Amino acid sequence: MSEVILGHNVTIGSNVTFGHYVVIKDNVTIGNNTHIGDFCIIGEISNPFAQEIEHTVVGKNCLLRSNTIIYAGARIGDYVHTGNRAIIREQSEVGNNVMIGLQSELQGDCSVGEYSRIQSNVSVGKYTKIGSYVFIYPNCVFTNDNTPPSGASDGSSIGDFSQICTGVIILPSTIIGRFCLVSAGSRVAGLYMDDVWIDGSPASNKGKLSKMPFFNKSGKRHYPWPLQYDAGMPWQGLNFLEWAKERKIELPDIF
Amino acid sequence: MSEVILGHNVTIGSNVTFGHYVVIKDNVTIGNNTHIGDFCIIGEISNPFAQEIEHTVVGKNCLLRSNTIIYAGARIGDYVHTGNRAIIREQSEVGNNVMIGLQSELQGDCSVGEYSRIQSNVSVGKYTKIGSYVFIYPNCVFTNDNTPPSGASDGSSIGDFSQICTGVIILPSTIIGRFCLVSAGSRVAGLYMDDVWIDGSPASNKGKLSKMPFFNKSGKRHYPWPLQYDAGMPWQGLNFLEWAKERKIELPDIF
Amino acid sequence: MSEVILGHNVTIGSNVTFGHYVVIKDNVTIGNNTHIGDFCIIGEISNPFAQEIEHTVVGKNCLLRSNTIIYAGARIGDYVHTGNRAIIREQSEVGNNVMIGLQSELQGDCSVGEYSRIQSNVSVGKYTKIGSYVFIYPNCVFTNDNTPPSGASDGSSIGDFSQICTGVIILPSTIIGRFCLVSAGSRVAGLYMDDVWIDGSPASNKGKLSKMPFFNKSGKRHYPWPLQYDAGMPWQGLNFLEWAKERKIELPDIF
Repeated sequence: MSEVILGHNVTIGSNVTFGHYVVIKDNVTIGNNTHIGDFCIIGEISNPFAQEIEHTVVGKNCLLRSNTIIYAGARIGDYVHTGNRAIIREQSEVGNNVMIGLQSELQGDCSVGEYSRIQSNVSVGKYTKIGSYVFIYPNCVFTNDNTPPSGASDGSSIGDFSQICTGVIILPSTIIGRFCLVSAGSRVAGLYMDDVWIDGSPASNKGKLSKMPFFNKSGKRHYPWPLQYDAGMPWQGLNFLEWAKERKIELPDIF
Repeated sequence: MSEVILGHNVTIGSNVTFGHYVVIKDNVTIGNNTHIGDFCIIGEISNPFAQEIEHTVVGKNCLLRSNTIIYAGARIGDYVHTGNRAIIREQSEVGNNVMIGLQSELQGDCSVGEYSRIQSNVSVGKYTKIGSYVFIYPNCVFTNDNTPPSGASDGSSIGDFSQICTGVIILPSTIIGRFCLVSAGSRVAGLYMDDVWIDGSPASNKGKLSKMPFFNKSGKRHYPWPLQYDAGMPWQGLNFLEWAKERKIELPDIF
Repeated sequence: MSEVILGHNVTIGSNVTFGHYVVIKDNVTIGNNTHIGDFCIIGEISNPFAQEIEHTVVGKNCLLRSNTIIYAGARIGDYVHTGNRAIIREQSEVGNNVMIGLQSELQGDCSVGEYSRIQSNVSVGKYTKIGSYVFIYPNCVFTNDNTPPSGASDGSSIGDFSQICTGVIILPSTIIGRFCLVSAGSRVAGLYMDDVWIDGSPASNKGKLSKMPFFNKSGKRHYPWPLQYDAGMPWQGLNFLEWAKERKIELPDIF
């Protein structure tokens, strides 16, 4: 641990382990059993001459892979995993059991629920809200200014259980419901209810996702996907409907 | 500063500050009051066995955020800010007050004017010329070879005050005038005059941008944008038209 | 070399050189004359608490530019060059003379033949197979799950001598033949034979590439390109057809 550089007012839980050349800046709290990989920076500040530095919290049992940067003021839950070079900026909140992939960025003032997975090279603009159990595939971008440049910060929101496929551009103020799927390469604006298949550039509502002929390798209709897939999800090994009922999650009538 | 590794023939101005684990290679000049963040490399060389290493210049009052890499032979103006992991390659010139965002790359022999802002994950191919007061949003790519692979380097050029929205692909030898806007996700080739709205994949001229019904939150027609937005621009707090007149900037007749 | 951190069971050839702050983890072999740049990590492990760490091999005469990460279990051939921050993950195999560009990622269980060049910010999903003499331009993504999320890993394959232009999305299980070209910004699925021009989103077969009016600066039909371009290729300075004959490469009847 001789190579870890520690700032002032740093609180480190028990069994925390560090890689090489780690930089922990001021006012950082790290929970028990978390691992901070090589070359990570925790508590990064946008302005190195700032007088006041906000408190940064990394939860317990997290795994921050090498070169991850967490900005001052971000709050990371428990059991969060990051890919190499993930970046989480000021005021963003990341729920428990989330994965943020390689070189992906959550800009400031974003929120991510629980068990969501953001894959590689995703750029999440300021004020975006991402629900729980959401998967975002590589190279998606979430924008936030309808008349650039204007200083507006019209973040979008993605409902629980939705899937945003590779290379999607989400335009400002887009609202996507739960259990939706946006196809790869789409450019999306507007408002979508639950269970919608969204496709195209510009994208449109292609109908109810659960009625579409999307069959998985077992030959079953794949959507709504939580009935078909549970790896790493909190209903793993359980019946999804019972799990949802117990959690008092109100499901749409596609179940 | 004990962790800063300094090469030969390095000139560092007054009040320059360094983060941790910074590597400054040979033949580098850094201006007064500049900050070089953690893990930055200044004067990076493409071939580690090169005999002659070109002179690298970083201006004064710059802020190079952590993990920025500046290649040998690049010349960076004053008051330039980089996002984490920005990369500026050999022979590229960056004007004063420019921002180069997270993980964006200026390949070799590029130029950027003044006060332009390149956001995250932008890939700017060799020989691209970007004017002043230009904004380039995340994940844009500037290409330079019409018949790949051919070794051609047909860079594009973007006129002053133009806006290149998220995820745009600029094909080789594209010329875009001043005060244009290219919509998100477009794939652009060809020649465009001033004040054009460019949209689509493949993109086309959709008409005069200043005539389009793009209204900002104040309910005003937003383009030409310098009448509506001035944050961080040199006309901030001034009348744009007077500022332009004083600077002898010849404006198109949309003003 | 005092800053190189060396794990257990590391074998380093003769004339290997290191940049600053390099981390070599356990069970790594590095061939003669290879250079490992600043901040590289060789033998990176996904789970820092893993008991068994696979053997990582980097060949001879390689140039790994700064911040490259090679995961444990990857096997890199000779004369391989990486751009800054390239990432090669577990079980992936990279042939001789390949270039992997800036911030590009080969996810696990991928293979790349010989003399192929992957440019910047390319995301290559698990189980993708890339042939030899293939060029992949910036920001392409190779996906691998047709009904996300399903845990499927249906990698695609790209035939020898094919060109995948900027910003292409390759959907799962796509098979592209030899001597093809996919235009910038296309979204591709399905099966394509040799010598096909593929374009559009969704993409389709636009006809025989060698019959298309794609002329290079010398005014010659550019495809099949190996007759027009040889820089860095093994037939450089030779007659391509004779080189191919000697290598017993069976060419399609477009030659």
